[in-house]
Amino acid sequence: MSKLNRVLTLAARPIGFPKESDFNLIEEPAPTPGDGQFLIKTRFVSVDPYMRGRMNAERSYADPFEVGKPISGGSVGEIIESNNNRFKVGDFVHGMWGWQDYAVSNGGDVYPVDSDLAPIQTSIGVLGMPGMTAYFGFLEICKPKPGDTAFISGAAGAVGQLVGQIAKIKGCSPVVGSCGSDEKVEFLIKDCGYDAAFNYKTDTDYPAKIREFFPNGVDCYFDNVGGGLTDAVFANLAQFAQVSICGMISQYNLEKPEMGPRASYGALLVREASVRGFLVPQFGAQFPQGIWQMAEWIKEGRITYREDIVEGLENTPRAFIRMLNGENRGKQLIKVS
Amino acid sequence: MSKLNRVLTLAARPIGFPKESDFNLIEEPAPTPGDGQFLIKTRFVSVDPYMRGRMNAERSYADPFEVGKPISGGSVGEIIESNNNRFKVGDFVHGMWGWQDYAVSNGGDVYPVDSDLAPIQTSIGVLGMPGMTAYFGFLEICKPKPGDTAFISGAAGAVGQLVGQIAKIKGCSPVVGSCGSDEKVEFLIKDCGYDAAFNYKTDTDYPAKIREFFPNGVDCYFDNVGGGLTDAVFANLAQFAQVSICGMISQYNLEKPEMGPRASYGALLVREASVRGFLVPQFGAQFPQGIWQMAEWIKEGRITYREDIVEGLENTPRAFIRMLNGENRGKQLIKVS
Repeated sequence: MSKLNRVLTLAARPIGFPKESDFNLIEEPAPTPGDGQFLIKTRFVSVDPYMRGRMNAERSYADPFEVGKPISGGSVGEIIESNNNRFKVGDFVHGMWGWQDYAVSNGGDVYPVDSDLAPIQTSIGVLGMPGMTAYFGFLEICKPKPGDTAFISGAAGAVGQLVGQIAKIKGCSPVVGSCGSDEKVEFLIKDCGYDAAFNYKTDTDYPAKIREFFPNGVDCYFDNVGGGLTDAVFANLAQFAQVSICGMISQYNLEKPEMGPRASYGALLVREASVRGFLVPQFGAQFPQGIWQMAEWIKEGRITYREDIVEGLENTPRAFIRMLNGENRGKQLIKVS
Repeated sequence: MSKLNRVLTLAARPIGFPKESDFNLIEEPAPTPGDGQFLIKTRFVSVDPYMRGRMNAERSYADPFEVGKPISGGSVGEIIESNNNRFKVGDFVHGMWGWQDYAVSNGGDVYPVDSDLAPIQTSIGVLGMPGMTAYFGFLEICKPKPGDTAFISGAAGAVGQLVGQIAKIKGCSPVVGSCGSDEKVEFLIKDCGYDAAFNYKTDTDYPAKIREFFPNGVDCYFDNVGGGLTDAVFANLAQFAQVSICGMISQYNLEKPEMGPRASYGALLVREASVRGFLVPQFGAQFPQGIWQMAEWIKEGRITYREDIVEGLENTPRAFIRMLNGENRGKQLIKVS
């Protein structure tokens, strides 16, 4: 008897904020590994903000998801059957098979996970895509120098919590973040070593907040949010500021595109500032170095990370929506079994 | 008897588009050179778009001009009296003494002009600030590679006409510009070697024009204009596009700040594009190399330039306004005597 595979598919393209009914849970026989293939049992599934973009029809970060088809995304699992000498039963791998219980692979689309190095779910967290996004997106684009001021929007998310810690390691001062609750403010300051943080939902005079923390302007801006908060930062850039655009979660769920002041573009000229958008695969060739460095910093106690683990594959859409709402506390993961 | 010095001052900060009444022509005795100083008779005055920003109270490219005080800007002149061994009567120098008949200097704020190399007014044109703006602003920021596509807004201006030619020298294809008249379109294609150009005043469906010329997107964008034209380019950037912000003349004379679509910022992320604003003094240390290269290209017939020369210092405000209106044909200069 074949195993039962639960697969989450895109039922409909979300209009504005996603609803649980935009997803379907279907059941089908688990795939059977052929020659040279192996069967993976999913252990953890990752939900990440960028996936919202792929739910639209237009190309965004990557090709759009197709309606009626499985949602792909970062997952980590254990090999439970294998016809491949290089991948043995009991080994862990991560890959992009996404929101389902099982997947088959020939090894070409997955990466080995060293379960002795760190808990396996870090391969889709601090030592995976979010970690590399923080590491390379900040270091390669903001190019922080000791004494630079740094601001991180969406600072309590999977990426932001790491960027602030990397900024501190590199000698930035002050390192300030914005996030969506007072509890997260405390987390950033107490656990992540941020010098300061504010709750963007209650401290809504963004220009005043930014001027308060950065009387001499922002040198390094790592942006996960976009929108009005970014306008406030752009109005307070230091000369030769460097801005890394990682995301713009404030814009993902709008039903109507927003307008913003053109002055933000003008600020780049007057401040001789640089802005660069990136998708983390562009740094793929450097990942081994980044993973090694992050693992070192974790071992040395210089980097901490927080995970928010929801149980049950069937709860993945709910966890995804929760994360888009900012209700997660740290990297949002789903423990599948 | 002392010579009479005519000096143009800022009578009032312009509201929206400058008027001639925003300037005053005053007459005062010409300054007398002291020990180690010399007296310069102005030959040519430059008017440049960036000067509009300095007429506002807020800091823009540089400190604001003061109301009631002389307008400073690029000028070139001849030394007619000298108490300085290194600067002789008959020598030419350029500097920032601006809109007046005479200036004194001790040599610390002016640069020698080699009148055998090229006509003296090129020291404030193709071999001066506008030339260096084109050269470094394009090469250092757009980093063109052979085969890259290039778009230049404000292409018929002092800077834009040069950028397109440099892009052709570097192997960009196609090189396309926008400008404000059909006559300028012809100038760009016939004289400057642009592959194509369009009149932004009559071809107003910018997204359609950009898609027409760049079906595979824009790799290098040199922006003098900003606003809706820039939105159209941002919606059609190639992956890893590089944008150099030199100016945004569409925004300089607005009475009310404009809004624009936030999607332009989003495009930078999806296209992994870079945008960098610059003021040309940041490349000052490299000017000798840039001037040498531009002079070589002119000598080889690979770079041409067009000047629009108005006679009479008293006509400087009018020439400045004309240029902001796009009525100039090439680098706008005022011949003083």
